[in-house]
Amino acid sequence: MTTTMRASVMTGVGTLQIEDRPVPSPAPHEVLVEVAAVGVCGSDVHYYRHGRIGDFVVEEPMILGHELSGRIVAVGDGVDPDRVGQRVAVEPQHPCRRCKQCLAGRYNLCPEMKFYATPPVDGAFCRYVTIDDDMAHAVPDSVSDEAAALLEPLSVAVATMRKAHVVPGSSILIAGAGPIGVICAQAARAFGAARIVVTDLVASRREKALQFGATEVLDPTAVDVSAIEPVDAFVDATGVPVAVVSGIKAVGPAGHVVLVGMGADEYALPVSHIQNLEINVTGVFRYTDTWPAAIHLAASGAVDLDAMVTGRYDLEHVGEALDSDTDPASLKSIVHPQ
Amino acid sequence: MTTTMRASVMTGVGTLQIEDRPVPSPAPHEVLVEVAAVGVCGSDVHYYRHGRIGDFVVEEPMILGHELSGRIVAVGDGVDPDRVGQRVAVEPQHPCRRCKQCLAGRYNLCPEMKFYATPPVDGAFCRYVTIDDDMAHAVPDSVSDEAAALLEPLSVAVATMRKAHVVPGSSILIAGAGPIGVICAQAARAFGAARIVVTDLVASRREKALQFGATEVLDPTAVDVSAIEPVDAFVDATGVPVAVVSGIKAVGPAGHVVLVGMGADEYALPVSHIQNLEINVTGVFRYTDTWPAAIHLAASGAVDLDAMVTGRYDLEHVGEALDSDTDPASLKSIVHPQ
Amino acid sequence: MTTTMRASVMTGVGTLQIEDRPVPSPAPHEVLVEVAAVGVCGSDVHYYRHGRIGDFVVEEPMILGHELSGRIVAVGDGVDPDRVGQRVAVEPQHPCRRCKQCLAGRYNLCPEMKFYATPPVDGAFCRYVTIDDDMAHAVPDSVSDEAAALLEPLSVAVATMRKAHVVPGSSILIAGAGPIGVICAQAARAFGAARIVVTDLVASRREKALQFGATEVLDPTAVDVSAIEPVDAFVDATGVPVAVVSGIKAVGPAGHVVLVGMGADEYALPVSHIQNLEINVTGVFRYTDTWPAAIHLAASGAVDLDAMVTGRYDLEHVGEALDSDTDPASLKSIVHPQ
Amino acid sequence: MTTTMRASVMTGVGTLQIEDRPVPSPAPHEVLVEVAAVGVCGSDVHYYRHGRIGDFVVEEPMILGHELSGRIVAVGDGVDPDRVGQRVAVEPQHPCRRCKQCLAGRYNLCPEMKFYATPPVDGAFCRYVTIDDDMAHAVPDSVSDEAAALLEPLSVAVATMRKAHVVPGSSILIAGAGPIGVICAQAARAFGAARIVVTDLVASRREKALQFGATEVLDPTAVDVSAIEPVDAFVDATGVPVAVVSGIKAVGPAGHVVLVGMGADEYALPVSHIQNLEINVTGVFRYTDTWPAAIHLAASGAVDLDAMVTGRYDLEHVGEALDSDTDPASLKSIVHPQ
Repeated sequence: MTTTMRASVMTGVGTLQIEDRPVPSPAPHEVLVEVAAVGVCGSDVHYYRHGRIGDFVVEEPMILGHELSGRIVAVGDGVDPDRVGQRVAVEPQHPCRRCKQCLAGRYNLCPEMKFYATPPVDGAFCRYVTIDDDMAHAVPDSVSDEAAALLEPLSVAVATMRKAHVVPGSSILIAGAGPIGVICAQAARAFGAARIVVTDLVASRREKALQFGATEVLDPTAVDVSAIEPVDAFVDATGVPVAVVSGIKAVGPAGHVVLVGMGADEYALPVSHIQNLEINVTGVFRYTDTWPAAIHLAASGAVDLDAMVTGRYDLEHVGEALDSDTDPASLKSIVHPQ
Repeated sequence: MTTTMRASVMTGVGTLQIEDRPVPSPAPHEVLVEVAAVGVCGSDVHYYRHGRIGDFVVEEPMILGHELSGRIVAVGDGVDPDRVGQRVAVEPQHPCRRCKQCLAGRYNLCPEMKFYATPPVDGAFCRYVTIDDDMAHAVPDSVSDEAAALLEPLSVAVATMRKAHVVPGSSILIAGAGPIGVICAQAARAFGAARIVVTDLVASRREKALQFGATEVLDPTAVDVSAIEPVDAFVDATGVPVAVVSGIKAVGPAGHVVLVGMGADEYALPVSHIQNLEINVTGVFRYTDTWPAAIHLAASGAVDLDAMVTGRYDLEHVGEALDSDTDPASLKSIVHPQ
Repeated sequence: MTTTMRASVMTGVGTLQIEDRPVPSPAPHEVLVEVAAVGVCGSDVHYYRHGRIGDFVVEEPMILGHELSGRIVAVGDGVDPDRVGQRVAVEPQHPCRRCKQCLAGRYNLCPEMKFYATPPVDGAFCRYVTIDDDMAHAVPDSVSDEAAALLEPLSVAVATMRKAHVVPGSSILIAGAGPIGVICAQAARAFGAARIVVTDLVASRREKALQFGATEVLDPTAVDVSAIEPVDAFVDATGVPVAVVSGIKAVGPAGHVVLVGMGADEYALPVSHIQNLEINVTGVFRYTDTWPAAIHLAASGAVDLDAMVTGRYDLEHVGEALDSDTDPASLKSIVHPQ
Repeated sequence: MTTTMRASVMTGVGTLQIEDRPVPSPAPHEVLVEVAAVGVCGSDVHYYRHGRIGDFVVEEPMILGHELSGRIVAVGDGVDPDRVGQRVAVEPQHPCRRCKQCLAGRYNLCPEMKFYATPPVDGAFCRYVTIDDDMAHAVPDSVSDEAAALLEPLSVAVATMRKAHVVPGSSILIAGAGPIGVICAQAARAFGAARIVVTDLVASRREKALQFGATEVLDPTAVDVSAIEPVDAFVDATGVPVAVVSGIKAVGPAGHVVLVGMGADEYALPVSHIQNLEINVTGVFRYTDTWPAAIHLAASGAVDLDAMVTGRYDLEHVGEALDSDTDPASLKSIVHPQ
């Protein structure tokens, strides 16, 4: 087998370079995955453009990309060798498994976490990656490579639906019809939500939301979102304060708010509304135990991931993939490293 | 029996007047309570000084007071007549019992709620009140009249501890060592919290917190509260944005924040900290099913309510009782209407 | 309006009689419903054949039937008169709204409950019934009268799925492919279950289960059900001890068991398996807040209730409707009282 | 340091032998603990007398004992060397940290678990043991070695209280006033239970329960336990079917049952009572994240573990320690291996 591979390396703000890197070797309990497809996420774009997200700063050359699928080509000690050849979706996190959070089942909050494409950990815009074997989830043939890569953002949506307590019959408001908003709308429908209101400033994106599960779309510049019939849950996928405030005000008694979109470190929330209605506000930071559910949603057709793909790129064109979000018609770009 | 009674009526901002009012008659399922003791709450003071709390405006003369105990002296249809003579603590709410919130067990969030001393519903600075019989909770002789009245703020603390998920071994930060902060500290100890940090600007109040359950007190002007060893839960009893922000930042992964103190309608919260650590933020609005627990805590000595009483007033001196909070040595004032 | 109505009255074990009864008058907060369709439930059949279920004994003539839809034709005081004419599905319970269970949101467990067709409360095999207005749930035109009646057993299934913690991706085993087993299979699919195993002794019923959501069916006389790949949840819809025992043994660590089928008062359960795997075992007794979810499931097509109807009867043939369960091809019989 | 140690080895049913064994060497992430005190548990006694518990069979010589405290004397790679010298209570489990149960925070249910004194894993009736460093919990000086050893049964009680949903004001029935029943009574009091009813056949043990937190004791041969005022929770610490049945029947609507005592694999439970009242029945199998809470309960004096010790033995008298349960005055025996 080859010992070097091509990788698209972010060498500075706004700069990428194709480099030869050694193919990693799977440690005990790890598998080596030949990467098939990698989705472009807003956080990749943010690192590429700004070199940091909050306290996470890219200080050394780093490979971006953390939404990926592939095929197991080698296994480390302690892994069933029959897994070689298996098609997998990668859950791109490596928790310590020993801290209080890990022991409590919240490995997403592990302070020792090594997460793909989060400095200084390399990601997946390359040909091979290693991952713990329990984070490489087998996918059935009915799920394409691209859909398998997009199980990662679907996992965010699954984690969001859980925290938003969406169950059959729920009503939900989603701010933002970008990739996360749209995949949350799809997940909301699959979790049984009866009323799915999506807001976005852009008409074409509202139109897209209707295709992907929204039962109603609103232009927040034309409608007072805080005055709609109260919803059980609000999910913000914008990070924009005005959207968050009006969304929270649209939530009824004992409802749930999940803030997914990243914005400023601090901004004003409608505290007295939260207090008087005993609304529950939280965020989603990655996920735990979401791939099995996400695989079922994709394989059963309850969620359509393939239809979200609007652009395809090879390793030499990762820059174009990262910039594709400037086109409002773009929803999800995929990099094929092979 | 007498048909009129004396009441202290708030007739305008900052003005009270003793009036003769008809003794109310218990409707079906109601009891008539001869009031023994009424605690003064910050919301009474706020109505007295400002004539409103948020959207609740005092537009007609109104009797204040909603923390009360007394003795049942008559019962309406459908109530066991043997209850006459029973000493009771009053849960001062009258929910509709028919709306979605009531059917879900969240009667505190009933939009049709009639709550004592919330405009336009009269409260308890008077000699007799009526209440639904299931909201008049029998108290044992070991609980004094004053302690029985203070089961109401203890109920707020019990509801807060539940929402803060305080269990044996928890760590909790409480901002503010006023009546609510102190009673929350007591409740936290009774719920088994191992580490109870209380902050207050005033040294004498910090001292008091130590007597009532705090394991540690901090002066927030001298210490960076956001940098203490992370806690499982934060309870704000100030309504002051800077206290809320530093308190939330002191909460560890998947921790709980309960905002009890009322402040501005909107103010800045540390959103990215909430998101990155998946912290749960909510408020407490009254209570459901707290009196049985509160009675046990008081009767067993786990919480000492009598020791919190720092002033006693008759019906003619409700104004002084309402103004007693200007003395930092005052913790809890009680009005005895008889 | 007419003041008398025809009703099919159970006058003794195995005997029914058409009688003229006064049309009931809606009390305050009640509505008068002209009955459109009534499903036949196993409990109706049990009362008809045995005159009792456990401690509930039919001692006076009683009208059976508690799965019903209809149209509001009059309203009592306190009810919006615009509701007259509305098509509704009836939640056939009348809780006290004042006891500890009601206040806690568990009105299904109210010890003062008056429930249709549970002695001595009359049911719905007649032309008119009254019900509290919040228990008469408006249904959209896309839900037929028969489907609206079957929202009652669907509510049992919804309550069961909640207690079984079925969420997208769950695996579930259901024992019994009668009406409850089949409607649970449909509900499980609608709640997102990925693997739905149904067992039944009768091949034709197993076949039916496959049409209604089962992903796999088993003949428990041919397969050791306790040895299948462990499931997250087990629902018993048989009340047969051997099915319950093997079903519980099929549940994996921390899984959930919901016993829906009524059988003997006491029988042996696999206690050490429950202990060693910390399995949670409970039952379902009626429901709370299930109609909104059930209406959405029916209206959205996620659950098909019309397809479950295998027989239709008028008020003169309620006996035949009750005996229809002796035909293994029968799944659900409907009585049309008008 | 010495390389061999003395150990009390169970060489067959009812036979023990002092042997020299090599002192174990701490692997990476492990610590070496010099054992100070070891409690005798009913499961040790059961293995000693019967050679098996259910499917767990002692097929090779094995060291018993899994309730222990000691002092860290060496650390493996990856462990802070400053821990040497620390007094610790040992959580005697070694989960795989990689399976579905471990990732979900239920490491107690790990199918790959290696648990002290569970065949074929050696326990602690010896001078030195190794354990993962996160399972060696530092104890303050206010907790004695014996109390620190008894944090293990207290952990069972803590896990039980959590599953029984005991909170301030709860009522609880506990069947059996042996070591587990008594420690559960203490834990119930510490968790805030208001009413703690303990049943036992033996008067002196009922007396002891009153000293350790019971508010009421009953002789089940004299009183119909199923007819007491309903409780919120029932904990069985007997494994005796008649106690379990009457205890479950004493539980009110939506109450909780936790079966701690091990008995027959299958026995009859009152299923229709469980169904009609929607009672939740489960078991406790070991524990997760209980030591921090248990340490607080012991250190704060909320639970008195030292007072439970009724016998002390050295390594040469483990047999007597194991047989001490035949004396009804014996509550808890401790082995001191040094």
